[in-house]
Amino acid sequence: VPEAVAIGIDVGGTKLVAATLAADGGVLRRLRRETPAGDERQLVGDLGDLVAELGSDLPVGVGIAGLVTPKGAVRYSPNIAVYDLDLAAELGQVTSGGVAIVNDASAAARGHHDVVMLTLGTGVGGGVVVAGELVLGTQGYAGELGHLIVEEGGRPCPCGNRGCIEAYASGSAIGRAAAQRLATTDAPGALRDVDPLTGKSVTLAAREDDELAREVIEEAGFWLGVALAGLVNALDPEIVLLGGGAAAETAPWMVPAASAAMRQRLLGPDFREIPPIELASLGDDAGMVGAGLLAAERAGTI
Amino acid sequence: VPEAVAIGIDVGGTKLVAATLAADGGVLRRLRRETPAGDERQLVGDLGDLVAELGSDLPVGVGIAGLVTPKGAVRYSPNIAVYDLDLAAELGQVTSGGVAIVNDASAAARGHHDVVMLTLGTGVGGGVVVAGELVLGTQGYAGELGHLIVEEGGRPCPCGNRGCIEAYASGSAIGRAAAQRLATTDAPGALRDVDPLTGKSVTLAAREDDELAREVIEEAGFWLGVALAGLVNALDPEIVLLGGGAAAETAPWMVPAASAAMRQRLLGPDFREIPPIELASLGDDAGMVGAGLLAAERAGTI
Repeated sequence: VPEAVAIGIDVGGTKLVAATLAADGGVLRRLRRETPAGDERQLVGDLGDLVAELGSDLPVGVGIAGLVTPKGAVRYSPNIAVYDLDLAAELGQVTSGGVAIVNDASAAARGHHDVVMLTLGTGVGGGVVVAGELVLGTQGYAGELGHLIVEEGGRPCPCGNRGCIEAYASGSAIGRAAAQRLATTDAPGALRDVDPLTGKSVTLAAREDDELAREVIEEAGFWLGVALAGLVNALDPEIVLLGGGAAAETAPWMVPAASAAMRQRLLGPDFREIPPIELASLGDDAGMVGAGLLAAERAGTI
Repeated sequence: VPEAVAIGIDVGGTKLVAATLAADGGVLRRLRRETPAGDERQLVGDLGDLVAELGSDLPVGVGIAGLVTPKGAVRYSPNIAVYDLDLAAELGQVTSGGVAIVNDASAAARGHHDVVMLTLGTGVGGGVVVAGELVLGTQGYAGELGHLIVEEGGRPCPCGNRGCIEAYASGSAIGRAAAQRLATTDAPGALRDVDPLTGKSVTLAAREDDELAREVIEEAGFWLGVALAGLVNALDPEIVLLGGGAAAETAPWMVPAASAAMRQRLLGPDFREIPPIELASLGDDAGMVGAGLLAAERAGTI
């Protein structure tokens, strides 16, 4: 059995996933809990329990959606309903191995040379790698690609604005779009009997050849492609990576639609290489593993 | 008199500006010509004449809108109507001092630490600096910020797509928006008698307190702010710089409107520093001077 070099934790909108990691990023032992959204003390307590169970002498890396300072304070994480929580300090009390708190999507994008990465989950996060280095930005807040506006005045986004790509291509947005379609059509379909409608239930229906479910996912992919065109025009990456559960599940319908919409909107598509859109190899684990390995690097255990 | 270290040339949609530059970027002698848009041989000839007149032993740096390869071939420059022109090779025949051909906005953004720069002229270009380094991208095509889509399906853009910020905030777009407003309202105003309506004529009317002209510029600023919100969410720069003639002229109305729209759309505006939006200090000369100094650096004359 390989030795554990770190604990990686992904704090998502609906679940906490924690695991001990080998030096190559392999997952050794994995634990899951529901995210106690909106209850900061409970969140800190749950994370402490997970660390205690996995090994309180290991470096701990946490990936979490939102604005995270370089020192590991979570300033603004609306999907988890956490505001101004010094998570690095809190978790420093439950492990002797060192703590790294990073934006989940930024953590997931590590290890590539020139990358635009979007993570599709409850929300949409992102990470940008330029010349092999993760772009942190002046305050450490770079990579919030989910709030690129693709349709000013468009669909309401959980961030309070309208028209952000998160309002079109997140798992939650796919669920909402399906509900909207069902409410405005008489078309039959597997989704009629599903409650609640989520990205997951829409994906399951798409797998069973439900036409409406596939159209909803393709529409999300179209909008994703609109956002990606802007990002590829701005940053000219070698590859576009998609991470997060909603991307992995919807890929067969989402990715072709996104590729077509992106290509059509790139400047001079016939005069350039078009970057491929691929699933991040670690899929839903990318943020957790990226954060854990970052913690191990900082602690010097790898 | 300071010694000339390079020739800087800005190839814009309407004019060529060339100058000998001192080591500090100061302009020593300046020449101007109209851009022979759509005639590549004439463009090469005119640039050769400018170099011959300014000093054919100096390094020559050219800033030009569009996709430029790292070796200095212009692959795609729709505003100048140049496609696949190896400008570095062409100009290498008229100077012994070395040649650098770069995207104009990227050239203008050099010299700052974390910057998003947009140049507003005939089109909208851009440059991104991350951690002090200009972002070139995998193929050297990064920085095309003018084609970020802010309203999918919106106003037609010269690039062939719809809804790009270039279709809302360039000098040409301001002229078109003013014409559109005049055609759909009976409101009086100084612009009624102006033909053709351009960004420049709208700006002149705004300076003379013309209400419609100011509204048109403020609307362009609003859309600019929408685009900037996405870019600041993505890259978290310390500053947003605006270059190009249309930015310098319209700033008194454009910048406040852009700032307000950007702030409202940033993720967690109360939890972060909002980067200021400022005019690039070199204004309309920024691309020319940036390109010239890059050529001087590469040639080792500074």
